[in-house]
Order: sequence, then structure tokens, then C-alpha cells
Amino acid sequence: MNGPMTADQLEKALREIGATRYHNLHPFHKMLHGGDCDKDQVRAWALNRFCYQTAIPRKDASLMGRCDNRQLRREWIHRVTDHDGDGDDPGGIERWLILTDGLGLDRDYVISEKGALPATRFAVEAYVRFVREKTLLEAVASSLTELFAPGIHRERISGMLENYDFISEDVMPYFTRRLSQAPRDADFALEYVKANAKTPEQQQGVMDALIFKTQVLWSQLDALHYAYVEPGLIPPGAFDPRDMS
Amino acid sequence: MNGPMTADQLEKALREIGATRYHNLHPFHKMLHGGDCDKDQVRAWALNRFCYQTAIPRKDASLMGRCDNRQLRREWIHRVTDHDGDGDDPGGIERWLILTDGLGLDRDYVISEKGALPATRFAVEAYVRFVREKTLLEAVASSLTELFAPGIHRERISGMLENYDFISEDVMPYFTRRLSQAPRDADFALEYVKANAKTPEQQQGVMDALIFKTQVLWSQLDALHYAYVEPGLIPPGAFDPRDMS
Repeated sequence: MNGPMTADQLEKALREIGATRYHNLHPFHKMLHGGDCDKDQVRAWALNRFCYQTAIPRKDASLMGRCDNRQLRREWIHRVTDHDGDGDDPGGIERWLILTDGLGLDRDYVISEKGALPATRFAVEAYVRFVREKTLLEAVASSLTELFAPGIHRERISGMLENYDFISEDVMPYFTRRLSQAPRDADFALEYVKANAKTPEQQQGVMDALIFKTQVLWSQLDALHYAYVEPGLIPPGAFDPRDMS
Repeated sequence: MNGPMTADQLEKALREIGATRYHNLHPFHKMLHGGDCDKDQVRAWALNRFCYQTAIPRKDASLMGRCDNRQLRREWIHRVTDHDGDGDDPGGIERWLILTDGLGLDRDYVISEKGALPATRFAVEAYVRFVREKTLLEAVASSLTELFAPGIHRERISGMLENYDFISEDVMPYFTRRLSQAPRDADFALEYVKANAKTPEQQQGVMDALIFKTQVLWSQLDALHYAYVEPGLIPPGAFDPRDMS
């Protein structure tokens, strides 16, 4: 391994990972925002994605729970409240349930996660464990997919509103809110990583953490695609649209 | 083991643990608030206690990090902000540093924890680990020493103001703030424990968790007493008042 990269070289390398590995490149994402999913496939996506949303505050609280740096905890805590809500704000998890409600999914069934694909749950728990067990620098770096999130949220909002008559603006508050939350989070994490990843080993760890996280997101779309598109083999016990009718 | 206790019997048993094991019964506490400590002993106490204060947000974030219950996380999160601060509120850790500043201790030295007794650090880390590794019910129960905290804080405020000319009201904001924070926290945790500890095994776990926590607090005063009072054997590397002069 050569000497360390400059901070700007590291940022460039991280953005390159996003450009080649973020799940906006996945065929299921293209189907979803391009209007090529049927309502049941959108339901399957929203139901599975709930598992991810609901785990985020545990992930972020776990990061804080191993963090000796009070300034970092003070900065990080709003990620928990963004999702759990605080006071009058019902939070992102509740906003996600507005989407699943709007899709006609039973709320208790969604919350139970019983219909989620096992691969979704495994990927989500791998993310929570990664954040608990890796270095703090790697844990922070694994959040950097948010650098690429505003683009995907904008695509989703416009694509889904345009293409699906069962999706209206009032079920999309999760995404409209995230458009302002994610950039703030991503900028902070990027600056932290650039300031703290100094050695080649640390920089490699940061890049690997971001690659890992893109895999967490990508594998969830793989599983959806496999179960609900091609070949369409739904695992035993997972959400089966045929049971709804 | 007989059948389960009623919720009220459990509360009585928990209060009995506090009445017999809380660290307000420790000789060092009696010295401290009775005016029998010299300034160096108060310094040693404040310096060591900082390790405990600064670990509390990690402890509470760790609890949230393993908690699937969003309502419980939403209730618990203010324990983190009470200590870390939030927005304009500098938080309890910062308020504790006002006390150590007022005692003439170097702030960087306090924050470094280099002068703390090893026994303090071990007790504090045992508490953080307990909350991470035991059941959620036991983790919540370990916070129940707060039931007994307002009494001790009131004793400390009045005792220390009366007895020490080097302690004035402006260095005591930590305690005055906790007078209102701790009862809210303790009431919530007590109701949670009463509602969720149903079997004899769970109830025993709750009582053991509270006993464990009283030991975490008590052992810190043991270590202070041993090092700075009787026999006054300061471990190598720990805060030594003779180095200050």
C-alpha cells in the first residue's frame, strides 16, 4: 500500500464508490421509479424497507453508545430523533407507515416484520452489528451512502408520483423530509471521515465501510427482485400478494 | 421461589434495597456533605465522579441501541441530552465541569480521566457493560437508583454550601438541575419495571439489577475513602493533591 491519500482524494474515492455501487443503479430501483412495478411490488418494497427504517435509530443509538466524544454524540443524536420523532414530530418511521398505509398494507403486519424477506432482515442486522463492532471511524463512514440519497429520493418522488396512480403526495412525506435531513447528515459524516482517516489503513477501512453499506442496500433490492420480479419465488412465510385478495 | 409479587410488593422491595444499600449510607458521603472533607478530598470526589457522569450518555445510548420499542426510545432519549446537552443547553457533563473548575482542577486533566482511581473506571465500565449485555428490563431497572437521588442531591447542596467556604451556589448547577430531572426519569423507569417484571425470575432480575447498581455507586466511594481518607493510600498515577501544591 502506498502513502495516505489527501482528504480530497479520499472524498473522490468515496464518491466513486457511490457512483458505481449505490442502489440507484439496481434494476429494481429503475423499475420502481420508472413506473414498471405493479402495486404489489411497490407494497413488497415498502414493507421490506420498513425493516431498514425501523432499525436506523437502534443503529445510530448504538454508535452513540460506543462514542466517547460528546460533540460527536451531540451532532449524531438528531439522526435518532429524525426517525423516532420527538415531541410533536412523529418521526421518519411513522412517516414510512403513512406510505404503507397508503398502499393498503395492514399496519400491524408491517410493524411485525413477519412478511419481510429474511434476506432483508439479515442485511439490516448486519448493518446494526457493523456499527456496533467496527471502529467508530468505520461506523461513521458506513453512513456515507447518505451522500447519494438526495438524488435517489428526488428520483423516487417524481418517478413514483408520475407513474403510479396509487401514489400521491400525501403518502410521500418520508422522502420530502429526507431531502433536507440527509444532506446535513452526509456533509457532517464526510467532514468527520476526511478529518479522521489519516493512515492508508484507516482510509481503506473507510472505503470498505462504504462498500459494505452499499452492499447492505443493494442486497435488499436483489432479494425483492428475486422474490417479486424474476423469477418471482417468494420464500415461505414472506409477504405474498396472493394472500391479500 | 414462590409466585410473583404484586407490582406494589415489587416497588416496596426495590425501595427497601435503596433504604439499605444506596450510597447515601456510605461514610464518605456522610463526610462529604457533613463538612468533614478537606478541599483535596472534595476535589478527588469530583474528579472521580466525572468518569461516571461522562459515561452516562454512552450507557443510555447503548440501552436505546438495543431497544426495539420506539416509545421507550423516545422516552429515554432525554437522558442522553440531559447529560450531553442539546442546542443552548450545555448539559450535565458541562455543568459537572463547572464544579471541578470551581475546585481549581485543570479541566483537561479532569476530562482526560488520568487522575481517576482505576476502581472508579472499572465500576463505571461495569455499569455500561451491564446495560449493554443484560436484558432490557434489567438495563432499565439498573437506573432505579434515581429513585433515591433527589434526597442525596438535596443533602449535598445544603451540606456542601453550609460546610465548605470553597463551594458556592454557582458551582452547583449540576445538582440543582438534577433535582427536577431525576424524579421524572425514576418515575418512568419504576412504572416500566412494575408493568414488565411479571414472573418471579424477572422480578428477581430487577432487584438484582438495582443491587448491582448500588454496588457500582458504593464501590466508587469505597475507593475514594481508601485512597484519600483511611488509610489514604493513593494508587500510582491517580490524582495526588501533593502534586498540586
